[in-house]
Amino acid sequence: MPQISRRGESMPQSPIRKLVPLADQAKARGLKVYHLNIGQPDIPTPHEGLEALHRLHRTVLEYSPSDGIRSLKDKLAAYYRRFAIDVSADDIIVTTGGSEAVNFAFMSCLDPGDEIIVPEPAYANYTAFAIAAGAVVRPVVSTIDEGFALPPIERFEQLITPRTKGILICNPNNPTGYLYSRAEMNRLRDLVKQYDLFLFSDEVYREFCYTGAPYVSAFHLESIENNVILIDSVSKRYSECGIRIGALVTKNEEVRQNVMKFCQARLSPPLLGQIVAEASMDASDEYMRSVYNEYLERRNYLINGLNRIPGVYSPVPMGAFYTVASLPVDDADRFCAWLLSDFEYEGATVMLAPASGFYTLPDVGRNEVRMAYVLEKHELKHALEVLEQALRVYPGRVKQESID
Amino acid sequence: MPQISRRGESMPQSPIRKLVPLADQAKARGLKVYHLNIGQPDIPTPHEGLEALHRLHRTVLEYSPSDGIRSLKDKLAAYYRRFAIDVSADDIIVTTGGSEAVNFAFMSCLDPGDEIIVPEPAYANYTAFAIAAGAVVRPVVSTIDEGFALPPIERFEQLITPRTKGILICNPNNPTGYLYSRAEMNRLRDLVKQYDLFLFSDEVYREFCYTGAPYVSAFHLESIENNVILIDSVSKRYSECGIRIGALVTKNEEVRQNVMKFCQARLSPPLLGQIVAEASMDASDEYMRSVYNEYLERRNYLINGLNRIPGVYSPVPMGAFYTVASLPVDDADRFCAWLLSDFEYEGATVMLAPASGFYTLPDVGRNEVRMAYVLEKHELKHALEVLEQALRVYPGRVKQESID
Repeated sequence: MPQISRRGESMPQSPIRKLVPLADQAKARGLKVYHLNIGQPDIPTPHEGLEALHRLHRTVLEYSPSDGIRSLKDKLAAYYRRFAIDVSADDIIVTTGGSEAVNFAFMSCLDPGDEIIVPEPAYANYTAFAIAAGAVVRPVVSTIDEGFALPPIERFEQLITPRTKGILICNPNNPTGYLYSRAEMNRLRDLVKQYDLFLFSDEVYREFCYTGAPYVSAFHLESIENNVILIDSVSKRYSECGIRIGALVTKNEEVRQNVMKFCQARLSPPLLGQIVAEASMDASDEYMRSVYNEYLERRNYLINGLNRIPGVYSPVPMGAFYTVASLPVDDADRFCAWLLSDFEYEGATVMLAPASGFYTLPDVGRNEVRMAYVLEKHELKHALEVLEQALRVYPGRVKQESID
Repeated sequence: MPQISRRGESMPQSPIRKLVPLADQAKARGLKVYHLNIGQPDIPTPHEGLEALHRLHRTVLEYSPSDGIRSLKDKLAAYYRRFAIDVSADDIIVTTGGSEAVNFAFMSCLDPGDEIIVPEPAYANYTAFAIAAGAVVRPVVSTIDEGFALPPIERFEQLITPRTKGILICNPNNPTGYLYSRAEMNRLRDLVKQYDLFLFSDEVYREFCYTGAPYVSAFHLESIENNVILIDSVSKRYSECGIRIGALVTKNEEVRQNVMKFCQARLSPPLLGQIVAEASMDASDEYMRSVYNEYLERRNYLINGLNRIPGVYSPVPMGAFYTVASLPVDDADRFCAWLLSDFEYEGATVMLAPASGFYTLPDVGRNEVRMAYVLEKHELKHALEVLEQALRVYPGRVKQESID
């Protein structure tokens, strides 16, 4: 048989992959499995989006423009302006989910061997797309003790080499829920400016900032507007992950021209998703507020509950709908597998995402897990009880891991 | 400003890109422009597909599995069996259009520097995806005089180096409409087997074979089943290019595992497209037959009309809905631009795709164009009249270019 690509072989396999068959087996044994491991919202999609499908009167579902339907781009530009992000429709390229925006950003800006600096823990697929582009992720580790704040900027600067092409951030952050302050963003801006780097900024969770602290977009930073590549998606804000509509936004025309070549090669983003996305942007303020309030309540409920469990610690996430918590366990990968294969409480167990999948370095965050609060409160309640019981009896419990 | 990727800069720009603004200007001058340049069918999407949207009762448009919805995969497997392609649902990975299937095939099978051999003229985006993967396309040129038959297999063999990883074919062929015979496919099989190469086979036009000659799938070839990577799409057969649903089909489990890593990185193929694709597969035999007959009539009409124009020659395409024709012109790129910028007849002009976009080598096929017969007959009739008049007055007409 011909040999497959080493590129593919070197792509990281999420630790969750190993857990999926265990979860399937647990369900086959009749257990209820609470999925705290995934970012699949259970919130209804805005009815405006669904109704756009019900009343669709097209007879041919044809290609849309490679950069997206113009009316959607116009509406996105108006949306960004509400967040004081001053871009025009021409700066926006519609992509097949935020994923494709990351992929095209890397493909268009990075050559094989180029490096990007990424604060970790970080969304695991950034590394996958970097490998696809032949680029290298250089991690700067943030810590749970610091609430996952931006590490000192010197730690970024120390990693800069002649091959460094950019810095990638996710703000509000998946997986930590951290929201970068104006001061932190300014430090990133200064570095980006000094070394003329790209600033890839994934801001798909901007709707979900809970603390009153301002959301600072990369586009709010002065004098680096040609360096900023904004990654966006409608998936999370309208609870429509399946329609696969995102956007790459940049004022750098050279980058846009490069990105467009990749867009043209794949012909067009999904037509139906664009129709739903455009209609969803008419969702009422009431809808947006109720979704926000729901996540806020779940966050409070989950974090309070977690911090009441002996030996468990979670910072209070400022945004998005995730938290990274530390557990009193020897190894979170092992604990998460054990939860599915060897444990049950009142007919249920929980599936968590081991944080090892969010770190490039192998020995970091071994006692941490990511939890998504995309379940209703009564489910969160039971999931917390299950977790507490599990930690009582888990054979690999580590007593001294208590945080305080 | 930071430097953009050389990868992007080296991606070919389709000659059509330069024509688009000229076409826009022609339309702004009030001209009717007949688009023979694109493969966007005007045939209605099956009503089964559209109705699946109208009656959709989901409330959350959530992620689908990374490899596609199981019921769609089951239905695709049953569909392939009708073409004597013996694959199971597990061999099928649903992709975001056939484009993503090509992209993931290359990413999973080819490393930077690896080579693939491609008979040309060929669909231009293969080269784009090869460049994205860092791979090199080695062309074998087929000629209009031979009706774009498969070139002698020795020409392929001469290009084989230690870096050769595969051969890519499109069958029935875009842009030529050629359908490879059993004998030609067997020669490819022998070479693939002898050198243990991948055989990437794009067969998205299999519904459209007009001559009674059998459609020979790469999966019909004996003893190379682990070498075959089938590229597929529902776009053309159900006239639903915009839903972006394709498939990568292979019995090679190692390849599938590699492909799945890219699938997981982009989370899932479009949910709505999958729903439409699955429903479209219930299209009646009558629908499929009427679409087939429509293309067959258009083909006959277009090819007869072309060959009646002095100095123009088109082989009779055996499948798909394209033909590559030679014109009595100095340079088809120039002629196609001139059609849009300097010519009109009865308030109309035509947009054609210069064949230069389908050849890697710069000097091949300079007098050839691709035409898609995706217009209704009365439009084809007028487009042919416009073309005939244009060739009479085009300043760069070459008299000796007559074929016979």
